[in-house]
Formats: sequence, C-alpha cells, structure tokens
Amino acid sequence: MSDFNFEDHSHRRYNPFTGEWLQVSPHRGKRPWQGQEESTAEDEKVEYDPKCYLCPGNTRVNGDENPKYEGTYSFQNDFGALTQDIPEGEMVEGEFFRAKSEKGICRVICFSPRHDLTIPELDVEAVTKVVELWKKEYLDLGAKSFINYVQIFENKGSVMGCSNPHPHGQIWAQESVPVEPSKKQENFSAYFEKYGRSMVVDYVKEELKKDERILFENDYFVGLVPFWAVWPFEAMIAPKVHIASLAEMDQVQMEALADAYKKLTIMYDNIFKVSFPYSAGLHQAITDGKEHPEWDLHMVFYPPLLRSATVKKFMVGYEMLANPQRDITAESAVKILKSQPKEHYKESVA
Amino acid sequence: MSDFNFEDHSHRRYNPFTGEWLQVSPHRGKRPWQGQEESTAEDEKVEYDPKCYLCPGNTRVNGDENPKYEGTYSFQNDFGALTQDIPEGEMVEGEFFRAKSEKGICRVICFSPRHDLTIPELDVEAVTKVVELWKKEYLDLGAKSFINYVQIFENKGSVMGCSNPHPHGQIWAQESVPVEPSKKQENFSAYFEKYGRSMVVDYVKEELKKDERILFENDYFVGLVPFWAVWPFEAMIAPKVHIASLAEMDQVQMEALADAYKKLTIMYDNIFKVSFPYSAGLHQAITDGKEHPEWDLHMVFYPPLLRSATVKKFMVGYEMLANPQRDITAESAVKILKSQPKEHYKESVA
Ligand SMILES: O=P(O)(O)O[C@H]1O[C@H](CO)[C@@H](O)[C@H](O)[C@H]1O
Ligand SMILES: O=P(O)(O)O[C@H]1O[C@H](CO)[C@@H](O)[C@H](O)[C@H]1O
Repeated sequence: MSDFNFEDHSHRRYNPFTGEWLQVSPHRGKRPWQGQEESTAEDEKVEYDPKCYLCPGNTRVNGDENPKYEGTYSFQNDFGALTQDIPEGEMVEGEFFRAKSEKGICRVICFSPRHDLTIPELDVEAVTKVVELWKKEYLDLGAKSFINYVQIFENKGSVMGCSNPHPHGQIWAQESVPVEPSKKQENFSAYFEKYGRSMVVDYVKEELKKDERILFENDYFVGLVPFWAVWPFEAMIAPKVHIASLAEMDQVQMEALADAYKKLTIMYDNIFKVSFPYSAGLHQAITDGKEHPEWDLHMVFYPPLLRSATVKKFMVGYEMLANPQRDITAESAVKILKSQPKEHYKESVA
Repeated sequence: MSDFNFEDHSHRRYNPFTGEWLQVSPHRGKRPWQGQEESTAEDEKVEYDPKCYLCPGNTRVNGDENPKYEGTYSFQNDFGALTQDIPEGEMVEGEFFRAKSEKGICRVICFSPRHDLTIPELDVEAVTKVVELWKKEYLDLGAKSFINYVQIFENKGSVMGCSNPHPHGQIWAQESVPVEPSKKQENFSAYFEKYGRSMVVDYVKEELKKDERILFENDYFVGLVPFWAVWPFEAMIAPKVHIASLAEMDQVQMEALADAYKKLTIMYDNIFKVSFPYSAGLHQAITDGKEHPEWDLHMVFYPPLLRSATVKKFMVGYEMLANPQRDITAESAVKILKSQPKEHYKESVA
C-alpha cells in the first residue's frame, strides 16, 4: 500500500448499504473558517411552556387540545406532508414526465411531558417508553394496506429545521418506498441472496472484531461510526442479532435500544457541551406485508456540527452537485466521541 | 385521472436524469413557521477589501500574492480537498471495507476584481469572461490523464457555506466520477442507446413545446424549472442543441450561456430583493478521453430559500433519511420567477 494512509491522504470509501461512494479529505481540517456560524442560544428552558403546541393540556393551531399526558404522546401532524384523503392519479408521458399520487400519514411523537428534557437527559425507562410508542406506531401504520414504508425520525435543534424545542420526533408513513431505504433494500437483498444472512448483523460482527469504530455496546446493540460515515460525527446504532424491525422486538431489546440511544446522545452533548443537533431515525423492514429476513433495524444519526458548537459542516456545492465529502475521518470522530465522559455534562456540573 | 391534481395533492415525480423520485407536498406551504431564520446582513460592500484573500494584489494565507488582475483570475485552492501529490493506495476487505486513494486538483475562480459585484450585477461581457475561464480550466484539467471528471461550481451566500463574499467559484477535478454525475452518466447512456440522441436536448424540446416550466430562452440556451426540481426555486440552464461540454463551445455559445446565467440570477435576486444564495454548477461530459455524445452540458441551481429572504427549506430528517421533498410545486415556482422584472432590483432603484 506504499506510503498511503487513511489519516492523511484524500481517498474514497464505499458504502455497501447504499452502494454509493464517499470522498474523505482528512488533511482539510486545517483550513481556516471565516464563514457562517450558528447561534447556540440555549435559553433557560422551562418545564412547561404555555405557548408550546406540544406541552400537555395546551391547544394546537387546529384547535385540538393535547391531553394531560404523563409519558409519551402521539397525534396526527396538523400540517402533514402526506395525507390519506387524496384522490389517486398518475401521469406517464414519454420518458420525461412521470408522476403519481402519494398517500400517507404523518404523525408527531412527544417524547416526554417535560418541555426542557431531551433524550440524553431522560432516564432509560422514559426513553424506553419512546421506543415502545415507536413499536406501536410501526405496527399500526405498517398494518394498513396502503402503507408500504414507515419512516420514524427526529429533527433536533433549530439548525436542523426543528421549529419547536419540546422533545419530539415524527413519523412519515407512505405508499412508496422512498429513495434511501430503496437503496438499502436493494443491497440487503443482494447480500441475503448471496450469503443467506442479513448484511447489518454481519457488518456489526466485523466491526466488533476490528474494534476501531465501536463506541459502546450492550447486550443487543452496538453504537459505532460506520467506515463510510458522511457527516463529521455520524453514527449508527445497530443490532448484534437479527432484528428485522420494531415489530419483532421484546421488552429487553427495547430497553437495550433505549440505553444505546441515551448513551450516544450523551456522547454527542458532551463534545461541545451543547444540546447537539442532528437528524436521526430508524431504517427497518418495509411494510409491504412480506417477510424481510434481509433487513435489520438500525438507527442512523446525522449531526451537522464539525469544529465547534457554532461551526457546522456545509453539504453544499461539490457535495450537492458531485459527491458527499467529509474532512475528519470516521476514526478521528471515534476517538473524540470515545474520549467523552459517560455522564451528561449538565449532570456532572450539578 | 379522477379529481387528482398536481397543484393540491401530494405526489411523487420521477427524475429521468438521475433515476430517482421526489416527494411533492403542495398543500404544505400553509404550515406556520416558528423555526430558525437566517440573517440577511447585506452589509455595505466595498469595491476593494484589503482583508479579502481574493481581491487583486492581496496576500493569501499561504503567503502567495494575487496579481492585480482586471478580469477573471484562477489559482490552486490553498486548502484543496483534493491534491495530486498523494501516494496511491487501495483497501478491499470482504464486503464491508472498500476504499481507494483519490487524486485531484482544486482551483478557485475569481469572477471579477470587484469585491462587491455578483453575477447578476456584472455585464454579460464580464460574465462571458467567467465562462471563457471555465472552458480553459475544463480543457486544461480534463486533458490530464489522471483527471476523469471536472466539477465546476459556485457556492453563493454564507447560508451555503461560502466563507468569502468576493464573487468566486470553485473547481474540484479528480480521478473518479462522483456519485451525482455517475447517475446521469448511466441514464444518459441508456437513453442514447435507445434513441441515438442525447437526453438533455430532447428534454428541452419537450419543455419548450409544453411551455409550462420555461423561464426564458436565447439562441442557444433555455432557463427552466425541471419537472422534478427538488429545491423551492431550483432551476436549470440547458442547451437547445447538442453541446457535450465547454470544450465544444464557440464564442457565441459562451456569450449565450453567460446571458442565461445573468438572466436567471437577476430573477433570483428579485424574488426577495436580496442577493439570492445558491449552489450552482455545470454537469457535462466526463473527461476520460472518450467521446460522449450522450452528454449535454447543463447548469443546475440549488437555492435554499423558500418563504422569504430569511426562511429556508431544511433538507433534514425525512429528506436525509428517506426522500427529497418539496412544498411549492415546480409550476408555482415558475410563476413566481417569471413574474419578476427583467432588471436587477438594485438597478431599478438607482
Ligand atoms: O471550499 P470552501 O468554500 O471553504 O467550503 C465550502 O465549499 C465546499 C465545497 O462545496 C464544502 O465542502 C464546504 O463544506 C463549504 O464550506
Ligand atoms: O415538520 P417540521 O418539523 O415542521 O419540518 C421539518 O422537518 C421536515 C421533515 O424532515 C422537513 O421537511 C422540513 O423542511 C423541516 O423544517
């Protein structure tokens, strides 16, 4: 391999889950930054905000009143991008004009009645309630005949387009399998056909053997930075044993997933001592009514921050037009993440 | 097609250039916005800034001095993500670990000596100089045996990660064909095999016939919003006759491209009366030394703004994890763009 090394030299890495390549430019961390910085206005948050449309007992824009919920709470998104009450339609005109109507359901999931607590600040029991609700929603939505895919996700932080600080996530469930999970469907199927095993679990085994990108593990899940991670502190929570979807998970496994979710987000918050923004979500078996032994549920985290609490990685220009690109390597990110204390920085201060 | 219509109902559209689908949720424009807003600090810009590393005669971070250039000026990026002086290396380990060294060259292109003028504010003659320099760079870089792809692009505005307001663009040229142009390569090749003609020109002909998404045209180029546009005001400049790359363009065609570039960016600035941020760039024939009759050069524009000069579209959560999604339709964007005055708002004020 000559003098080439992954810590210093520009290279590409292949993502076998999506079949796409990543550009890595490790030497680029040295570049000065005079560009846009985000604000970290972490205002004193209150336990209950009378103006928040997610707090218990409050009235939403459409006039509905939230119950005085004590654990988690989910409801239909008042401004959902997907709705189920549309007529069907299709357009196929030559090679250039193809479109079809798309039915779906959008839901909002409140993680806790507390306006001021995020996942890393909740206890594992409370986070487990979130996972339990995800399972219930996945089962309910997935059972509908016109729903073939259920995307559960969380946008955290205003820099990620989140317009309400009350801890919550979303679900968009729909007729078609969207672009990203489709790529995984294709690659997981091909792998399963070749080896008779699911790809994600095999990958986790390899990473555990190497132990270069593992952040932590518990009985059922591993937190790791994938070899092909795109975002500076991208990470994945993946199972050690085959679990196609939430539908198959028992109580102990749900607790293990909650434990991993909390562990990773504590690491995140500790890096820059801020509530770390990200988009995160679950990729799991599509809900077309068939068995999907090729799938393993896994959770992906895409955080934008790069150099500090205020300087993010911009996925623009080259990245939009040509290829995803990152500066610090996956392995450097692992070092930074693993060196964080296990306690949340707010607790250790208290 | 029942009661279904594209202006009101959720649907998906297919992009034949990339082979991927888009989610359109037209009804969603009605949702209230309490989230992050960008600043529009359009500070009084000066013609010459002694601290700008792109202004003529100034010294850059690495000690090099810019010439006192009068038109355009290009130089090697002092912090390039791709460099040519790295050793070669490759890693292939089972199904999960594939990587290879990547050589390349990154260059910076100053559009004008004037620190304060952007493309829509320069005259067509000055913009033509930019196109001429693009051609020269594409020819020089593309001729190198280890360069198989040349990505020319512009990040405009701090919201797009641009760290210097001096009008400039970049070029990243490299060994491999990146992800986005690869998708186009595949679809353009398939189309060419089927019809013996290039896809982009055929598409432009269809759009001209329909005249629903055309913004303007001149002798050689058309400005349009593609049927499958993702960003709120995404647009494309594409040729009416087959032009595989800048290498084939004569002076008149270069002037026509400059004219289109200026026309579109004037429309953009006029929407919200602000210097409109975007990432833009050219997709054209790859530079592997072969003929590419399947390619037509075209320029794509991805602007983030949605509702106002300060509220952008966030491509987060669902979009990152599942599928690109837009609120206003391509056709609504066309209406807004076409209703703009032909003069730049700053000129009409003066
Ligand atoms: O090269 P610049 O302008 O410093 O950097 C900007 O453009 C690059 C290419 O699109 C991106 O990789 C960076 O994230 C962005 O900040
Ligand atoms: O639904 P919200 O939180 O209002 O909106 C946010 O998440 C959505 C799903 O990722 C995105 O489409 C929006 O751009 C973003 O602002």
